[in-house]
Amino acid sequence: MERVSSKVVYEGKIATVREDEFRLSDGSVTEREVVAHPGAVAVVAHDGERLYLVRQPREAVEDEALLELPAGKLDVPGESELECAQRELAEEIGKQAAVWTELKRLHTSPGFTNEETILFLATELSDTEPDPDDQERIEIVPWALDDLDRAIAECRDAKSLVGLLLFRELRRSGDA
Amino acid sequence: MERVSSKVVYEGKIATVREDEFRLSDGSVTEREVVAHPGAVAVVAHDGERLYLVRQPREAVEDEALLELPAGKLDVPGESELECAQRELAEEIGKQAAVWTELKRLHTSPGFTNEETILFLATELSDTEPDPDDQERIEIVPWALDDLDRAIAECRDAKSLVGLLLFRELRRSGDA
Repeated sequence: MERVSSKVVYEGKIATVREDEFRLSDGSVTEREVVAHPGAVAVVAHDGERLYLVRQPREAVEDEALLELPAGKLDVPGESELECAQRELAEEIGKQAAVWTELKRLHTSPGFTNEETILFLATELSDTEPDPDDQERIEIVPWALDDLDRAIAECRDAKSLVGLLLFRELRRSGDA
Repeated sequence: MERVSSKVVYEGKIATVREDEFRLSDGSVTEREVVAHPGAVAVVAHDGERLYLVRQPREAVEDEALLELPAGKLDVPGESELECAQRELAEEIGKQAAVWTELKRLHTSPGFTNEETILFLATELSDTEPDPDDQERIEIVPWALDDLDRAIAECRDAKSLVGLLLFRELRRSGDA
């Protein structure tokens, strides 16, 4: 599939909407409205006893304390996906990690947005300084690894659910 | 959290963008741009031997054959979530199911859209007529249940991943 034209039809603070045309491999051309997104990272971070989750207000879904993985947008020019994940982990929960593994790349809602989220596993944690600006809206939630099933039951954020479910699987197989 | 004002700033074919104001429980008021979405359903459907997946072109992520669960938008007025799931399963893969269970409700990308997806498990399948219009773009992909791990490895669609991972768990525990 090849994108053959692209036109920005709305540019707001968060959302940019494009009207794009695509040529498929059979030669047909389709037009689609796409909500453009820079992509994001999310991190399953644990120290062997606790997983570090966050709660934050998510106005879009009218939830004041949605349980999620630490995460952030790929919105710093020149920053790699891993560097972004490292920065977000430090800013949101005040941790750095010695070992990083990519868990999965996923599309959050491929019917209308190009957003791709890269999930990382971060281990061998040590303390650093969280960003005070982030702490105004984000609550750090240390969560007992033994109680992972309850986090999965409560979590309703798609990227975080994928991360937690893949992590539970790795843990069972002894790989995390 | 209470939405105290809402203004449509862009209305396109798929995307509607609103600028909303919210009052949090501490009294503070925040403004957010929200991409409005009617919500969606997705279905883990199996007959005890095969799972029924689909492949379809997803222009937004420039993938011509993304592996997903059968799914669709809640865009028929008056239709319940379950009725929508039943209609989509029939239209996309030509099956009806005698037993339906809700697996999970999730937010696909709560940072910028209100989209909620409801995941269902559908069993005791029988044949019905798929919608010829859907079949122009959607390939039905019967997938051996014994090979579920490979579907999870290939899948990059968030809602489908959550459904497949939760289903694998149920299957192991003997509940599906």
